[in-house]
Amino acid sequence: MLKPAERPLEQLLELMGHKGVFAILHSLQSGPLRFGALQQLTDLPPRTLSLRLKELEELRLISRTEYNEVPPRVDYALTERGQSLRPALEALVAWEEKSLR
Amino acid sequence: MLKPAERPLEQLLELMGHKGVFAILHSLQSGPLRFGALQQLTDLPPRTLSLRLKELEELRLISRTEYNEVPPRVDYALTERGQSLRPALEALVAWEEKSLR
Repeated sequence: MLKPAERPLEQLLELMGHKGVFAILHSLQSGPLRFGALQQLTDLPPRTLSLRLKELEELRLISRTEYNEVPPRVDYALTERGQSLRPALEALVAWEEKSLR
Repeated sequence: MLKPAERPLEQLLELMGHKGVFAILHSLQSGPLRFGALQQLTDLPPRTLSLRLKELEELRLISRTEYNEVPPRVDYALTERGQSLRPALEALVAWEEKSLR
């Protein structure tokens, strides 16, 4: 079996098959977001959202930054690799728009 | 709940999360293929491949044509809607190539 890094598309597609993952990747294209914002956006239960975010971190598509503030703040942002998904995400959105016409 | 046709992207992503579906959509861009060729391509068990092809038909991405020949011949081809996925599929392949560099 190949190592994860050697089959990035298969892993990405498997992950994007789960509810909310496309929305996370798409909305982070506009800048970092906090957990609460991602929850509102995806409407996922907190535990499921945490799992998806961990999976996206494992694929090195997003990064998690903890700020040493009171109350503590955690941001999620796209990595360079996640940003490079933009053309593919836009093409998928364009396909959907065309499909609905 | 919205009707399937009203959430085409969510349905497409869910289906592409299954092994072999991307390969089917991508290789049909070059023209129709028979069941046997799709089986070789995806390495899926026949029953699973049949199920995926039915799901792709339900999303109106592919069509199935039976030829009244001996022995009987069945072709799978992209619909116009399936063909219009080409830019998105190409962008995903380009992303993978970039990821592996």
